[in-house]
Amino acid sequence: MTTSLETTSAAAPGAASLAAPQPSAAAPAGTAPGPDVTEAVLDVARRAKVASRALATATRATKDAALLALADALVAASAEIVAANAEDLERGRANGTSPGLLDRLALTDERIGGIANALRELAALPDPVGEVVRGSTLPNGLRLRQVRVPMGVVGMIYEARPNVTVDAAGLALKSGNAVILRGGSAAARSNEVVVDVLGRALAGVGLPADLVQSIDAHGRPGAVALMHARGLVDVLVPRGGADLIRTVVRESTVPVIETGVGNCHVYVDASADPATALAILLNSKTQRVGVCNAAETLLVHADAAPGFLPSALVALAQAGVVVHGDHATGALAPAGVDVVAATDEDWATEYLSLDLAVRVVPDLDAALEHIRTWTSGHTEAIVTRDLAASERFVAELDSAAIMVNASTRFTDGGQFGLGAEIGISTQKLHARGPMGLGELTTTKWVVHGDGHVRA
Amino acid sequence: MTTSLETTSAAAPGAASLAAPQPSAAAPAGTAPGPDVTEAVLDVARRAKVASRALATATRATKDAALLALADALVAASAEIVAANAEDLERGRANGTSPGLLDRLALTDERIGGIANALRELAALPDPVGEVVRGSTLPNGLRLRQVRVPMGVVGMIYEARPNVTVDAAGLALKSGNAVILRGGSAAARSNEVVVDVLGRALAGVGLPADLVQSIDAHGRPGAVALMHARGLVDVLVPRGGADLIRTVVRESTVPVIETGVGNCHVYVDASADPATALAILLNSKTQRVGVCNAAETLLVHADAAPGFLPSALVALAQAGVVVHGDHATGALAPAGVDVVAATDEDWATEYLSLDLAVRVVPDLDAALEHIRTWTSGHTEAIVTRDLAASERFVAELDSAAIMVNASTRFTDGGQFGLGAEIGISTQKLHARGPMGLGELTTTKWVVHGDGHVRA
Repeated sequence: MTTSLETTSAAAPGAASLAAPQPSAAAPAGTAPGPDVTEAVLDVARRAKVASRALATATRATKDAALLALADALVAASAEIVAANAEDLERGRANGTSPGLLDRLALTDERIGGIANALRELAALPDPVGEVVRGSTLPNGLRLRQVRVPMGVVGMIYEARPNVTVDAAGLALKSGNAVILRGGSAAARSNEVVVDVLGRALAGVGLPADLVQSIDAHGRPGAVALMHARGLVDVLVPRGGADLIRTVVRESTVPVIETGVGNCHVYVDASADPATALAILLNSKTQRVGVCNAAETLLVHADAAPGFLPSALVALAQAGVVVHGDHATGALAPAGVDVVAATDEDWATEYLSLDLAVRVVPDLDAALEHIRTWTSGHTEAIVTRDLAASERFVAELDSAAIMVNASTRFTDGGQFGLGAEIGISTQKLHARGPMGLGELTTTKWVVHGDGHVRA
Repeated sequence: MTTSLETTSAAAPGAASLAAPQPSAAAPAGTAPGPDVTEAVLDVARRAKVASRALATATRATKDAALLALADALVAASAEIVAANAEDLERGRANGTSPGLLDRLALTDERIGGIANALRELAALPDPVGEVVRGSTLPNGLRLRQVRVPMGVVGMIYEARPNVTVDAAGLALKSGNAVILRGGSAAARSNEVVVDVLGRALAGVGLPADLVQSIDAHGRPGAVALMHARGLVDVLVPRGGADLIRTVVRESTVPVIETGVGNCHVYVDASADPATALAILLNSKTQRVGVCNAAETLLVHADAAPGFLPSALVALAQAGVVVHGDHATGALAPAGVDVVAATDEDWATEYLSLDLAVRVVPDLDAALEHIRTWTSGHTEAIVTRDLAASERFVAELDSAAIMVNASTRFTDGGQFGLGAEIGISTQKLHARGPMGLGELTTTKWVVHGDGHVRA
């Protein structure tokens, strides 16, 4: 079999004409890929496409065996990986990287063991590929099935967390896809070694090493070339901060699944039980701070505010939370509890820190209107004992997840029982909310006839 | 309730910062929208967003009553619509528009009756909104449901077929969405009157007229502004030729569902019954020519070619089909049957005419390789009696629909029993193959707890 994608793509209609590099004013200055980088990245993508075919028809047993082999290979190469990681850490320290970022970048034997175990857990999950989504026999006798199949080639663009390199490779492999990785430059050496280890392990179980490739060597221009590799890359998943996601959405001609910006709200209704409301609020805000499903704004019904806010503000202060409140909130703060005056910017901000915007609203309508105006569409929670209020909150808000009397922190693939999580989609197309393995697949219609023709 | 989307969007995080017009080198020359056009289109989109809320929680009974009212209003306004259409036809004739295009543009009382009946049929279809896609009670007692909800605001960009104006409005309404329409300028007057009639009919049943709006008045710059209305428009569906679709895909920052380019293949395997193969071939190629599910290339296994091709070429010639064949095809043509020498361009072309590319291939592998190289990923058919060949064809090709012993013409929402068809998606994200009403919806996770917090 010839690798025709390599030799004929300049003339072919799909991959070809569309994958040609396209000039764009939206590319960040200095990141437009030159022809060499474009060709190198397209070559990676073509090899990924060819490799993906071997995996598309692989059995679950083959894929699970590969995942276990990858896990073993990572553990066996721990020393090599930790040494490469030390170079990244050294460079990071020299560049003045913050201790928090250095911690996220750091790999130890123990962390590598944890990453390897995540691959083993992935092997234990059901295979989404081959699921018959729907099917029927049509009146004319045609047998129709819609079957789940891999996307083909998945691109992942992420920041300086080398664990994502393995995680993304494992998720792609289990769902039958080849993956092209673009990690942050701060983790360049770690990623290089990890990808090399994974590639050798794949080859060891008879699968193409091209199933997991990195384009880190091509820097930011390489990332932009990947965003333009339409027809060769089937979907791009950016994982990281709002700026990264915005850039990918704007620049990419490859379809993108947006993940993870969360300006989540907790609304305490007039009828809320104060103790329940406080427990949900504290959990939503403080159980883990730097994550997209943490609460960033508290809205309190005016009737509930006098009975709820004073003690809630004390509890928040004790938990180390800085409150950015409107005038009514400030007026209810007990002596000794500080409230920073909130501006519109606070309503818009995903703090990802121990900060919380707080507003007293006259009624449910005002709460819904505030959320509609400022939300990023991730998760909103209502605390209430009023059935009608809960039903309006569920029906009238347009976010990926709506919680009734539960913490915003539950919007999570693991918590939802979906198994491994690709990310949390805040877009409406294809996937919304926590994404499991199934979201890295598409479907194919398979139709069997006996010489059927259309009348 | 204040219309905060209008007053605060300049500061809000979602709609706001992303919906700002973005310069783009990819915009076709002379079509970049100025600030006035951008603001006018964003205003249309904001009003659509507000209107969409009224529909998102409307019952099926309300929506179906509205569809019937729209149908009645169109019939009642037939004379007005036909008069406006006559202006478009007059201008078209003056501009030298081809008779075929004029025919697609023309509206008569009878055609308007047919369009109105399509709305009535839509009313009879099940409502996709509210369907519980999956649900469970988690081990901690949380009740989880994933529920189908409308997208919100759907944009449709299409060419000079005024029936699509009504069709798109009806599909959007039934699936709970507001729609923004951008039709071809050749149908401008017809569309203007039709949209006005629909708006008045909506108001007459107590729904916002803003649910169906047109931006035709803003020309091509308006269409480009629509493609940039990210955060206000939830999905864009281009319906038309390859150029239109390519432009929308390249230019749009709003998520796009690609429809309809079909370079479909029929492969006659070594074991095929010649009569079955001929029936499927003729049906795929000639039953209707200008449609995306018509066959454009025939591949014939070398072992089948001598027994199949000579009579097939005669039958194709009798059906008025011009064959563009490779050397082996030409060598098998009986005297008096012409075969034009095929080039790579023929393998790539979606003729949409009585032309067919024909190639003899040495084996199934070569057929698969040819299809992989040249297909647009729409529909491929195999004619075979060999089970293993059929299974490889199904498993190894990556197109939206695979037919075994059936005509490519069956890839169609109506034929698949999906009811009304939005289009046929050739992308992998969100929708693939024929799209019914469900594909104009997204989902929302609804979680009920009793004060649940995360440990």
